Amino acid sequence: MRIAIDAMGGDHAPDEIIAGALEAVPQLDKDDEVVLVGPQELVESKLAELKFKKGRVSVVDAPEVVAMDDAPIESLRKKPKSSIAVMAKMAKRGQADAVISAGNTGACVAAFQMRMRTLPGVNRPGIAVVFPMSAGPVTICDVGANVACKPINLYQYGLMSTLYSQHILGIASPRVGLMSIGQEDAKGNEVVKRTRELLRSDNRLNFVGNIEGRDIFRDVCDVVVCEGFVGNVILKLTEGAVDGLFRAIKQELMQEKARLALKFKPIIMRVYQKHDYNEYGGAPLLGINGTALICHGSSKSRTIRNAIFASKKYYTQRINEKITDCLSEAHVRTSDA
Amino acid sequence: MRIAIDAMGGDHAPDEIIAGALEAVPQLDKDDEVVLVGPQELVESKLAELKFKKGRVSVVDAPEVVAMDDAPIESLRKKPKSSIAVMAKMAKRGQADAVISAGNTGACVAAFQMRMRTLPGVNRPGIAVVFPMSAGPVTICDVGANVACKPINLYQYGLMSTLYSQHILGIASPRVGLMSIGQEDAKGNEVVKRTRELLRSDNRLNFVGNIEGRDIFRDVCDVVVCEGFVGNVILKLTEGAVDGLFRAIKQELMQEKARLALKFKPIIMRVYQKHDYNEYGGAPLLGINGTALICHGSSKSRTIRNAIFASKKYYTQRINEKITDCLSEAHVRTSDA
Repeated sequence: MRIAIDAMGGDHAPDEIIAGALEAVPQLDKDDEVVLVGPQELVESKLAELKFKKGRVSVVDAPEVVAMDDAPIESLRKKPKSSIAVMAKMAKRGQADAVISAGNTGACVAAFQMRMRTLPGVNRPGIAVVFPMSAGPVTICDVGANVACKPINLYQYGLMSTLYSQHILGIASPRVGLMSIGQEDAKGNEVVKRTRELLRSDNRLNFVGNIEGRDIFRDVCDVVVCEGFVGNVILKLTEGAVDGLFRAIKQELMQEKARLALKFKPIIMRVYQKHDYNEYGGAPLLGINGTALICHGSSKSRTIRNAIFASKKYYTQRINEKITDCLSEAHVRTSDA
Repeated sequence: MRIAIDAMGGDHAPDEIIAGALEAVPQLDKDDEVVLVGPQELVESKLAELKFKKGRVSVVDAPEVVAMDDAPIESLRKKPKSSIAVMAKMAKRGQADAVISAGNTGACVAAFQMRMRTLPGVNRPGIAVVFPMSAGPVTICDVGANVACKPINLYQYGLMSTLYSQHILGIASPRVGLMSIGQEDAKGNEVVKRTRELLRSDNRLNFVGNIEGRDIFRDVCDVVVCEGFVGNVILKLTEGAVDGLFRAIKQELMQEKARLALKFKPIIMRVYQKHDYNEYGGAPLLGINGTALICHGSSKSRTIRNAIFASKKYYTQRINEKITDCLSEAHVRTSDA
């Protein structure tokens, strides 16, 4: 397969992106190819610095760069030769089987949706992020592709995330929770209440009902369905809370004897490693007609390397076929929404 | 002043609620009175067990109890003699200057709003929770009173929380952040975008613009404005993330030598104490025509005691007068919304 990577996406581009791509190559199959998309001269000079000979790594020129804070739609219009726009076109034309970017999430979603389109029956794609928990991985969808969700979108996120959780994460019957503000049926806003009926009516889903914010950390479900605004807040809040707590512990430790602080370091590192989202590489854009992974803006080489493996698994497991089949049998269709 | 407390509210009612009330009394002024609202016989027998002589503590009979999972509006209709309903009526009739409950939040909001009404100019009240951070307290409003916020509601939460932060928490010029999914103006949903214009247009506010979930932990603002659904997720998610992380650290420590684990315990306790929301007692229902505090369902005596002190401060600082004055000078009114 041919995997295209945005060489200019993220806070550590292009060096860490290129490094991650090169790290992945030896572990890919012989007929796999990695394509670095970015300003040709720059990317090639970096490859030369690293004394890397072309072959299974190629470069496709994309002279323009979308900044992390560019307005998504506008940036695509103004920068048609950006790495994100070029990757989207490659996927559309069958020149890439998977696209990966750690760049501007909004621009990625807009470009991929515009060029690659959605799978038959899918109204809006959703970004699914995996939270690594001690009790097992929890998939949260959507975390920012769709900030004005309709019940049909949320219902489809439940179905698509279930398939992802089954076939990528190996969970036989993923428990699906609907993010709300109380477990009782009466709790939530109108969209949540109507979504609950849709999720409940599909007996292919292992729907456990409403969940609350705290339940993500309590082994209550394997899939969390929420609208993109809420999911994005969840994602960034969790990151901030964990960082903040580790920082607070560090501050307290600094006031202790150096020897005690040193003894505690490996314990904290173990906790950190068990909850390290970088292991999963990137978040799939579920529902897109292709394989598209979006990585954290702070991604370093290890995350990019893992995202490449994840895109290969997503592609070879034929997740999109499973989604299309599943949605074609759903009794609630986009046209009913 | 006369402070009414829901003796039957919360997971540890009535014992911890009564204990908290009795702990507070010695530190109140001589003409202050605490009223325990609940089934008279039960509450009086508990007081007798504790060998407490009536005087500055009285009991008002409310034979019915709203359960934590009762549907709010329905429970008020079916149980007109519940402690929450009786407290709301007492406040309406001037028989209580403040009401405090650790019970069903939805029922509290519905009852207080129905009986006490909102302050002049306030469309919908909002619950303001204080997050204790190392860098200072952060006030988040709304965390669940209003799950279908209009921009005018969010704008008013910004104004009311600013006054609360100034006069209760002592922050001279609170920085107000609007919860969104990116710092750029283009990010967010439609309600957020329109709210931003309202907040920006009022130069009495120290508005810092959009914030993201992680910013709550980064000393970026002192007030966070968000709609009730999102705020409730934030509240419970933070609780869950912190609990989960402490649990994970504990698990790792258990695998170490007992001596090392013991040495680490006081460090964790110090971190915990610095972020202990129980210190603030309860969350005020901002915008209600009276003084109403809502406590966490898991509240024990210390939280209830602190909530009593907090209600007294709210009342004596005349926060409601300040809110009414401030809103009367606002150039955006409820009628414009």
